[in-house]
Amino acid sequence: MRYKCIIAYDGYEYMGFQIQEDLKTIELEIMIAFKKLLNMDVKIYPSGRTDRYVHAKGQVIHFDLDSTITAEGIKRGLNSFLPNDIHILSCEEVDENFHSRFSCKSKEYRYYINFKEYDPLSCRYCVNITNLDLDLMRKAIKKLEGKHDFKGFASAQIDKRKSTIKEIYKTEINVIDDKYYEFIFIGNGFLKYQIRRMMGLLVEIGRHKENINMIDEVFDKKDPGISHRCLDGCGLYLYEVRY
Amino acid sequence: MRYKCIIAYDGYEYMGFQIQEDLKTIELEIMIAFKKLLNMDVKIYPSGRTDRYVHAKGQVIHFDLDSTITAEGIKRGLNSFLPNDIHILSCEEVDENFHSRFSCKSKEYRYYINFKEYDPLSCRYCVNITNLDLDLMRKAIKKLEGKHDFKGFASAQIDKRKSTIKEIYKTEINVIDDKYYEFIFIGNGFLKYQIRRMMGLLVEIGRHKENINMIDEVFDKKDPGISHRCLDGCGLYLYEVRY
Repeated sequence: MRYKCIIAYDGYEYMGFQIQEDLKTIELEIMIAFKKLLNMDVKIYPSGRTDRYVHAKGQVIHFDLDSTITAEGIKRGLNSFLPNDIHILSCEEVDENFHSRFSCKSKEYRYYINFKEYDPLSCRYCVNITNLDLDLMRKAIKKLEGKHDFKGFASAQIDKRKSTIKEIYKTEINVIDDKYYEFIFIGNGFLKYQIRRMMGLLVEIGRHKENINMIDEVFDKKDPGISHRCLDGCGLYLYEVRY
Repeated sequence: MRYKCIIAYDGYEYMGFQIQEDLKTIELEIMIAFKKLLNMDVKIYPSGRTDRYVHAKGQVIHFDLDSTITAEGIKRGLNSFLPNDIHILSCEEVDENFHSRFSCKSKEYRYYINFKEYDPLSCRYCVNITNLDLDLMRKAIKKLEGKHDFKGFASAQIDKRKSTIKEIYKTEINVIDDKYYEFIFIGNGFLKYQIRRMMGLLVEIGRHKENINMIDEVFDKKDPGISHRCLDGCGLYLYEVRY
């Protein structure tokens, strides 16, 4: 039987989603919880990896299980063994053709910037950058929408055999509580570091340190070397995966 | 010269405000930062101690300093040495008669309960309790207002020589983002564990496990032994100290 789970986590204490030997990762914690619950090694497939410090409000995984445990039993059982900062929001049986990564229609990521005084109570969940030109960033982010080769915004280490052409369906910048800028990116998929490097350039534009046309230049040159600093992972959330 | 600072901190990693030898405390971190900034031991006086895990949005301290450093220099200097989860929001010179504790006119504490699904991204900053009767808690919290002997709500270990009569000027319960109950308590002072034990009883009333009249009984009997469980420190914030 195949199952789909939606998971939330506070990524601040983790070295990312994907297992890396005995480093503290989300995948390792879920595998340990499965071992405690069912005394089995369960291979899990995420919709995509998240990097070190990156949070999730709606990561999706699937896995196959030959057991009599119910979907609700998996949810409650895993949650009872998982650490406080990882939580299974839902678990359901799905068709065997469902695949967390390949069936995905779109993904939504959000990035948070505290543009007011530094706040030690939210510093794990956003970055702190003041004096940003919101109107200019709103113009700039729109240039990222559509189908583009995002190679210039990706990590230099990405798999050369895979396409770097992706489509961003929608972007938005909201002001929350007169304290945070919430950047929304919805697309058919994102390359490693893509959102954090797009954020890096948006912030340089918002600080009037870089011209808005630099976005076209990064698209044209397709060279990760000329891109801008990658903003911290702790401001980034995998918000929703849609199927 | 006497200085007043307003401080915010995420108390989740700390054993409380007050120094306890080499345990991780807020006071110790501030003293270490002073030592790094001025190569001096500076004795600091808080408006009151906060317990293990308790946060602050507006703790106040004062201290005396014989140095040419400016108030803004103290603020920036300390912040550059303090860990991420402690931050000096402001520093100003004050009259030598000012005392963070004795000059205080009122204190505001807030307590947060997530009444929806467990959220790993806010679990350091609230407690998670579902199925609470908000209307009943709103009636109950009003019974705590006014001048009372709060001995029955205090820690059993409080100093017997000190008065346990305090006044609560104002209480309020707000619903935030359709997810959190925000309990506000403004008073002339609070005893050790008082708010967390009042919260413990309010929650029992909200769960219909205890009658609203139990509040009068705790006031009458003045016996900390009959009071209710102390809710977790991580939901509590020292929000503001007024002078």
